[in-house]
Amino acid sequence: MALLVQKFGGTSVGSIERIEAVAERVIQTRQLGHKVVVVLSAMSGETNRLLGLAKQIDEVPTPRELDVLLTAGEQVSIALLAMAINKRGFNAVSMTADQVTIRTDNAFNNANIISIDTDRLESQLEQGKIVIVAGFQGRDSHNNITTLGRGGSDTTAVAVAGALKADECQIFTDVDGVYTTDPRIVPSAARLPEIHFDHMQTMAACGAKVLQLQSVEYARMHKVPLRVLSSFEEGEGTLVNFETQHSPVMVGIALQRQQALIHIDVPLAELQQQVDLFGLQVWAVTNTAQSAQIVVANDDLARLRLVFDNKMRHISDVSTLSMVGDNVVTVAEAVVTTLSNTNIQVHHNKQMTDCVSLLINEADHQTAVEVIHRQFVVNQELLGNPSLLAVS
Amino acid sequence: MALLVQKFGGTSVGSIERIEAVAERVIQTRQLGHKVVVVLSAMSGETNRLLGLAKQIDEVPTPRELDVLLTAGEQVSIALLAMAINKRGFNAVSMTADQVTIRTDNAFNNANIISIDTDRLESQLEQGKIVIVAGFQGRDSHNNITTLGRGGSDTTAVAVAGALKADECQIFTDVDGVYTTDPRIVPSAARLPEIHFDHMQTMAACGAKVLQLQSVEYARMHKVPLRVLSSFEEGEGTLVNFETQHSPVMVGIALQRQQALIHIDVPLAELQQQVDLFGLQVWAVTNTAQSAQIVVANDDLARLRLVFDNKMRHISDVSTLSMVGDNVVTVAEAVVTTLSNTNIQVHHNKQMTDCVSLLINEADHQTAVEVIHRQFVVNQELLGNPSLLAVS
Repeated sequence: MALLVQKFGGTSVGSIERIEAVAERVIQTRQLGHKVVVVLSAMSGETNRLLGLAKQIDEVPTPRELDVLLTAGEQVSIALLAMAINKRGFNAVSMTADQVTIRTDNAFNNANIISIDTDRLESQLEQGKIVIVAGFQGRDSHNNITTLGRGGSDTTAVAVAGALKADECQIFTDVDGVYTTDPRIVPSAARLPEIHFDHMQTMAACGAKVLQLQSVEYARMHKVPLRVLSSFEEGEGTLVNFETQHSPVMVGIALQRQQALIHIDVPLAELQQQVDLFGLQVWAVTNTAQSAQIVVANDDLARLRLVFDNKMRHISDVSTLSMVGDNVVTVAEAVVTTLSNTNIQVHHNKQMTDCVSLLINEADHQTAVEVIHRQFVVNQELLGNPSLLAVS
Repeated sequence: MALLVQKFGGTSVGSIERIEAVAERVIQTRQLGHKVVVVLSAMSGETNRLLGLAKQIDEVPTPRELDVLLTAGEQVSIALLAMAINKRGFNAVSMTADQVTIRTDNAFNNANIISIDTDRLESQLEQGKIVIVAGFQGRDSHNNITTLGRGGSDTTAVAVAGALKADECQIFTDVDGVYTTDPRIVPSAARLPEIHFDHMQTMAACGAKVLQLQSVEYARMHKVPLRVLSSFEEGEGTLVNFETQHSPVMVGIALQRQQALIHIDVPLAELQQQVDLFGLQVWAVTNTAQSAQIVVANDDLARLRLVFDNKMRHISDVSTLSMVGDNVVTVAEAVVTTLSNTNIQVHHNKQMTDCVSLLINEADHQTAVEVIHRQFVVNQELLGNPSLLAVS
């Protein structure tokens, strides 16, 4: 008998039919004798609907109140799943973040979990109940409602699994595992049966959406075995762990789309201060004494405009493409040459231990990922001799 | 400088435009120097939307989980109003029931408020903030989410006003006061400038929807001055208090529609036990050793069917019409005669100190209310001599 945490995302609970299917799957696990804690996101579309209401009132809504608003979404899905399980004769109970006591810092919209009280969770599990926890939400030390940022339900699941010392944290999603790259962009992308925590963390940091960065970091730190599975079909999914049998030069390619490359006439230090205040992630690609060029998500432009509107110029649509693997730097030059041969311009590149990131025009993203995936991920056998690739 | 509690119902916050209008009105009050606590319902339609989702899963959803589900509605409206006020340069903060600490008993779906902690409310008010409290919701002693039943936001408002010893509790709604009867059914119904707590309580108990019974009882017990106002137009509304200058024989007529008169082959005592267990309100009109005839809301039929399905017979659509006034029993016979002359059958009647209730066919409700209102409320001068009315 194991203790499992099962997390279902928005698409998995996107309709009453889907919720009923999740109920069936959770009951299956329970019937095998396991203890089950379920962590849910809001029904798909709900978070965007609520955000849309807020933006009708204020383009940049009060961060505290935005969290009050958005957490209503998970409260709906946990109640509905509990009803569906109870209707089937099993005993389920929903719990919001404050009922579990999921304590976070006070960084509204992007909070970090500080602690999770397991007393009430454990007492419900001892009573044989299936416990359904609202993902994405927490409470700060003043009992204000906080959220963990988009995708934060993964973090909740991993943190709950860590606190309960669960045997596995299973992330059910609309894809059946972690892929070499986004299969919606590159249909030939392949599912990885396993991936090392190092690489998963870098992929997530560079925009792979299958798992949220904070959740991977948390799982790694607390050594929580993590598995990505499909909500819709049976399968083994992808196991994220500390030992992998096979580590190719390029494990996968992560893509961050809908970004803006901006030139701002403000010294980088001053800019960085403001960016930290907003809690934004930026890539500072160049800087001089008086100005800097940075890459930010389009969604974050409105905030920067609040402060720097008349100092921003040359805004262009870009994507960041990040290749991950222990020795991926050895093929960086070959990749740039390959793209150049395909008439794709690389504006900037950044090399880290196990990752090379390239800044390209948004319009080029599909071709670029396809070409690199074909040449450097699928043709892994070529990678023994990178020099061959430069001329291919 | 007064301390005011202002409650706005679902229609008043039914759209972004309405929420902006409420923001303006609350700010007006604040600008007059008053301290303001706002209590909100869910946006109109939201509670029914959520209930609809639940009923797709289970016709009789788990009561505990239904409360988790429904309270998401107020969480949305309080956050949006706080944003709208903040956007206008005033300082607002939203609070859920658990943040205020509104303690109730554990009667899910129909809980009673036990206590309200005023510490956090008062500290926010001291800081000059407009505090926006989620109506309708509470927490039991195990921190489970509870709701106060339909219209429960009124109760929250009155209870908060009582706990804070507010100068007035203002209930903003889609009508501009308490009327002699429902003006949507009888257009000539008149607004009462004031009404005695006794009569208001009886009107509410008998189905007048303008104020919820529990809230009137609570306001009366805690001597909270209560005022019903329109959200949409200026005006004095109706003041509910302990002294009224004028008390006609028939103050008003309350109507309960969509009810069922059922014959159940179960002794009344046994039936009553089950009804109490479900927390239903019924009118037991007849009973023998082996059976009883009761009136229940159509909405409650499903629950009774769970237990008594094969013992229920003769279900008919009825309405209850209740006339309120200190001496209204003196005209009871005249009313029945008048209805009889209009070919409206009164199945049963019940006389209490300040109220006479009549059971009529659902199809007759409009004519019956119109006739009685015209003869006994509008023509108050005739009431000095009730015998005149019997032959009119």
